Amino acid sequence: MSNSKRIPVAVLGATGSVGQRFVQLLADHPWFEVAEVVASDRSAGRSYAEATDWRLSADMPEAARSLTVKDYGDEVTSPVAFSALPGEVAGEIEARLAKAGQAVLSNASTYRMDPDVPLVIAEVNPDHVRGIERQKANKGWSGFIITNGNCTAITLTLSLKPLQDAFGLDSVIVTTMQALSGAGYPGVPSLDAVDNVVPFISTEEEKLAEEARKFLGSYDGDFSLAPFKVSASCNRVAVRDGHTEAVSVRLQNRATPEEAIAAFEAFRGRPQELQLPSAPARPVVVRRENNRPQPILDRETHGGMASVVGRVRECEIFDLRYTVLGHNTLRGAAGASVLNAELLKAEGLLPV
Amino acid sequence: MSNSKRIPVAVLGATGSVGQRFVQLLADHPWFEVAEVVASDRSAGRSYAEATDWRLSADMPEAARSLTVKDYGDEVTSPVAFSALPGEVAGEIEARLAKAGQAVLSNASTYRMDPDVPLVIAEVNPDHVRGIERQKANKGWSGFIITNGNCTAITLTLSLKPLQDAFGLDSVIVTTMQALSGAGYPGVPSLDAVDNVVPFISTEEEKLAEEARKFLGSYDGDFSLAPFKVSASCNRVAVRDGHTEAVSVRLQNRATPEEAIAAFEAFRGRPQELQLPSAPARPVVVRRENNRPQPILDRETHGGMASVVGRVRECEIFDLRYTVLGHNTLRGAAGASVLNAELLKAEGLLPV
Amino acid sequence: MSNSKRIPVAVLGATGSVGQRFVQLLADHPWFEVAEVVASDRSAGRSYAEATDWRLSADMPEAARSLTVKDYGDEVTSPVAFSALPGEVAGEIEARLAKAGQAVLSNASTYRMDPDVPLVIAEVNPDHVRGIERQKANKGWSGFIITNGNCTAITLTLSLKPLQDAFGLDSVIVTTMQALSGAGYPGVPSLDAVDNVVPFISTEEEKLAEEARKFLGSYDGDFSLAPFKVSASCNRVAVRDGHTEAVSVRLQNRATPEEAIAAFEAFRGRPQELQLPSAPARPVVVRRENNRPQPILDRETHGGMASVVGRVRECEIFDLRYTVLGHNTLRGAAGASVLNAELLKAEGLLPV
Amino acid sequence: MSNSKRIPVAVLGATGSVGQRFVQLLADHPWFEVAEVVASDRSAGRSYAEATDWRLSADMPEAARSLTVKDYGDEVTSPVAFSALPGEVAGEIEARLAKAGQAVLSNASTYRMDPDVPLVIAEVNPDHVRGIERQKANKGWSGFIITNGNCTAITLTLSLKPLQDAFGLDSVIVTTMQALSGAGYPGVPSLDAVDNVVPFISTEEEKLAEEARKFLGSYDGDFSLAPFKVSASCNRVAVRDGHTEAVSVRLQNRATPEEAIAAFEAFRGRPQELQLPSAPARPVVVRRENNRPQPILDRETHGGMASVVGRVRECEIFDLRYTVLGHNTLRGAAGASVLNAELLKAEGLLPV
Repeated sequence: MSNSKRIPVAVLGATGSVGQRFVQLLADHPWFEVAEVVASDRSAGRSYAEATDWRLSADMPEAARSLTVKDYGDEVTSPVAFSALPGEVAGEIEARLAKAGQAVLSNASTYRMDPDVPLVIAEVNPDHVRGIERQKANKGWSGFIITNGNCTAITLTLSLKPLQDAFGLDSVIVTTMQALSGAGYPGVPSLDAVDNVVPFISTEEEKLAEEARKFLGSYDGDFSLAPFKVSASCNRVAVRDGHTEAVSVRLQNRATPEEAIAAFEAFRGRPQELQLPSAPARPVVVRRENNRPQPILDRETHGGMASVVGRVRECEIFDLRYTVLGHNTLRGAAGASVLNAELLKAEGLLPV
Repeated sequence: MSNSKRIPVAVLGATGSVGQRFVQLLADHPWFEVAEVVASDRSAGRSYAEATDWRLSADMPEAARSLTVKDYGDEVTSPVAFSALPGEVAGEIEARLAKAGQAVLSNASTYRMDPDVPLVIAEVNPDHVRGIERQKANKGWSGFIITNGNCTAITLTLSLKPLQDAFGLDSVIVTTMQALSGAGYPGVPSLDAVDNVVPFISTEEEKLAEEARKFLGSYDGDFSLAPFKVSASCNRVAVRDGHTEAVSVRLQNRATPEEAIAAFEAFRGRPQELQLPSAPARPVVVRRENNRPQPILDRETHGGMASVVGRVRECEIFDLRYTVLGHNTLRGAAGASVLNAELLKAEGLLPV
Repeated sequence: MSNSKRIPVAVLGATGSVGQRFVQLLADHPWFEVAEVVASDRSAGRSYAEATDWRLSADMPEAARSLTVKDYGDEVTSPVAFSALPGEVAGEIEARLAKAGQAVLSNASTYRMDPDVPLVIAEVNPDHVRGIERQKANKGWSGFIITNGNCTAITLTLSLKPLQDAFGLDSVIVTTMQALSGAGYPGVPSLDAVDNVVPFISTEEEKLAEEARKFLGSYDGDFSLAPFKVSASCNRVAVRDGHTEAVSVRLQNRATPEEAIAAFEAFRGRPQELQLPSAPARPVVVRRENNRPQPILDRETHGGMASVVGRVRECEIFDLRYTVLGHNTLRGAAGASVLNAELLKAEGLLPV
Repeated sequence: MSNSKRIPVAVLGATGSVGQRFVQLLADHPWFEVAEVVASDRSAGRSYAEATDWRLSADMPEAARSLTVKDYGDEVTSPVAFSALPGEVAGEIEARLAKAGQAVLSNASTYRMDPDVPLVIAEVNPDHVRGIERQKANKGWSGFIITNGNCTAITLTLSLKPLQDAFGLDSVIVTTMQALSGAGYPGVPSLDAVDNVVPFISTEEEKLAEEARKFLGSYDGDFSLAPFKVSASCNRVAVRDGHTEAVSVRLQNRATPEEAIAAFEAFRGRPQELQLPSAPARPVVVRRENNRPQPILDRETHGGMASVVGRVRECEIFDLRYTVLGHNTLRGAAGASVLNAELLKAEGLLPV
């Protein structure tokens, strides 16, 4: 596909943290081209360069600078839209676009648990995209919405998938140590972060539990949650990017740490088969050093698109314990949606 | 007891992090008076003020400044010694003093799991001090060693004790987020701490598991470990002081969060009965806000001597989940030994 | 003065960061008693305990918990008011109280540079309180307003005063590394603080320069700015409390570092003469170690009420260089106002 | 130059922080190829992958993994050596190689102020490389040593050069806020970094002052220091990478901020003319936002090879004030040496 034929896409909520990641990831994308940026009326009408307090370490992509920011209410003409909309407006705007025939790849939480909306990790449950047809029928839309999940849930679920396939899942107790960027900007006050841990993130534990079970559940016309239990404790720590999670798992069939590591390392998904542009070489990377993964050293693994697992060992109570790390604004947010869009494109499901 | 009759005590390993806390806590103590400070030969012969890189925010106590630092090999004449010795020398020196008739209150890990040595939290297992007699007989010592535990174990165990008493313990899965001061000084390199989590602390998970079971076990001539299971994941985070621990507990008899809170709040121990000088008003303090405890706000509760519990709620898998926080160098180290010494004094077990 | 005769005082803006410090500092004050707490209509009508997200490490003082929060518009009956009001409302409310006969001790910036309002550091320019009389006359008020200064300016000025007295001041170039608490709560976003420096604080450089010159200026019916020059560069760093400032000074008469240290150490002010309750033993404390002052080790010096100076050495370009540190919410804010109130009381200038 | 003809180079001190940066920067270098890695006897004999605790976020370059680490005493055969040796061994080893005919590009401080050794920033004083000839003659070496400077000095000097050329320099007062990585690993203890500033870095202020003057001085057979004065105050802050410096400059001829910005932006050096592979597009990048440069946002500018200037404004005392930021382990260390080597190669001065 030559660059001149790249598919025009819109980024909704383009000026915020996740929106900026979308613009960054799509800047040199071989299949997609950012044609529209949409934000609230505070930004609308200005150039993207003027409207945006760009907070990523690399400079704003040149092509995006001069795009004029559209208002939430303006018509969006691109056939594909990536949504980083805040929860309070995502519901209405995403539905409007889906109704109008567009493919909406959403990072917002609004529709994730909707019985008509697929919640997809491209390596974990690519077959759930088949739910698009029922969604169109039930909602009366000509387009559709596909959601990716909560950053913490995606990181964990990528590591649970090979265990589920090989050994079956019974129970998962997980404690997270989550990065500051997960709360956006301005987000967490510095006086809550420096020399501190905050042992609570609103609605995070519930999302983590139910989304993991929807990802790992089945679709046969309805989405059914996978029948394992999840208990989560979510904490905010003074890390900029990268959620670390300490996991204890009871399996349906016992496995040794070595067998689990073999399952993690053998795991490949549809994006790897299809060699999608944003697919990590391996969805799960295992580190064998006893003090890994660490956010500062491992969050950029495979472009921030892999879950990095370490300290795989026996659990005195369940079967296995391990630590898993994922980049929350790449694999856990914008990157997940981009990979989903690539999957849809490769499967011929985009309206272009 | 007038100040002129205070019991002279020695602080072993007095120039290090925990040693400084001992000197600080004992500075205005009503019963004890620092008469000797002992350190390695790098410091020996100099005044405590010269030999010590004092790193606590309050100034070095005036009375300690002019004490001449003794060498590890020098004779110690005080009847009571508080030990903050490093592991590689603690074994020999503490045994030498105990043999010579002294009461050694040790924060070192060397003897904690020794079958002849009591491992004591004054509120949890004060009866274990009766093990002194068998220790003297078996070791052939005229004095004795009493150990306090690992900082992480003390914090957790204080919260487990009321649950054990009221409902029985079956299984505990705990993930810690531990403070930098737990590794001493220089300890953790800043490049491992800033913008990072390290998911491993050497031998910490093992200590936490076995010490919790010894604290909560029984003594009837032998120490037997309490028959519940512990699985720990220990992490280092960028917090100066205060270990935060996310806990899931399976009880022998189910309890609601409200019943657990009632048990936490009703809990008092022997130090509270005896009104010992360093005893916290409550060993376990429950915060009801949904985002507490936090190190920065709660680590100084009751002079840093309480375990602060919050987020008590049902666990989807076990019975209860909660977060507990303790000050690792106060309740988790020097303060624990001082409280143990007060207990021994009140019970008439000190050799003075 | 027995406790039963303590002067009732109001704290304006009582629920914010500096307001909480006022409530904390006044809790056990021998002369003053918090009788009224005033805040915005979001808090008014609730108890102080309910209305306040208490963020200091010690617990909220018991006596303050049950006070009912008054609205900005409510009548204040206490003869003395401490103001931590936000800038946008301070002007009107403080004037209303002063007009009504009350003594207002203000931490707000609104009136600091007003030609009728004294800007006072109790050790530096206690004679400026004489300006009250002219203020009353010019403003037509029966009460008055006394302001303390910007936290950065107070810290610096305390160190400049003994140099001015002994050697005269010509030029001061200062670079600050300021604490997060200086911006209040929520204040600085954590993503701006962790692994970062922000080289700009709005209006801070201007305030620092002009306030230092007003403090060190004279009062003879008018306030005249001291005739030295100040050039400031203000930066925000990841420190919770304590502003660090690197200073180069050109004096009118040369001085060696030793002579400067002698001047710093000899410095005492009116609060020390009067032995005011909140007066630090020494307003300027000199550390001789080559790596001091440090926020973590020195900000609590003399209850956070001293400026701590270190690294006094020759400047290759001006005469002297040194580093000075002050606690920004104690000496730099609430503590400064309390000390000013004590000075007024001792000088017989309070309306009680 | 095809890859098969790349010049083999040795990295001395290859396992440390700066050594790892050398290996990283040279991994895909068009002109150089890492053929030898040299470290202390703790590492010697093992593969580079085994011997090195790799601490950069990207993985260790594949080609370097299997290199066998040589001992300090082993013969080095590559014609070019990049040195990240610790000070205590750099002197002897670098001299041995230079004597043996090799070109040594050194980041060590040992020879920086040696009257026979060029101290070079490729954009600032490329003509100083002519000093090689006299060095060879005076030292009796067939090879030579070229040093780059202290990280803080390089960052500052890049910004001073265009001011010197356009307006002349008289006096520079600079306060630095330096990154943790500048002290290597383990380097700064975390308890000195979190919630703290350390206002002292050993010998840093002296190096900054004298190196800036050597860089900006002239070479006419001897190196003479530029005749301006520098007064520095160096501080360590909790930033991983990137030194921030607040600068006040007195010029020989006054300049407005706009004129200074024009000079900064017009500045190009020999590396830009020669289009050297590691040359930043602009050596000095000016940010116009009022709160820039910031380490987190700006340290990677032009691959971490530019000095980023902001807040250019009048100084109340000198002529100009501004803030400058540079990446201390890229432009301030390994990157500087690599650029110097490229300059030498382009000028035909490498022994290959």
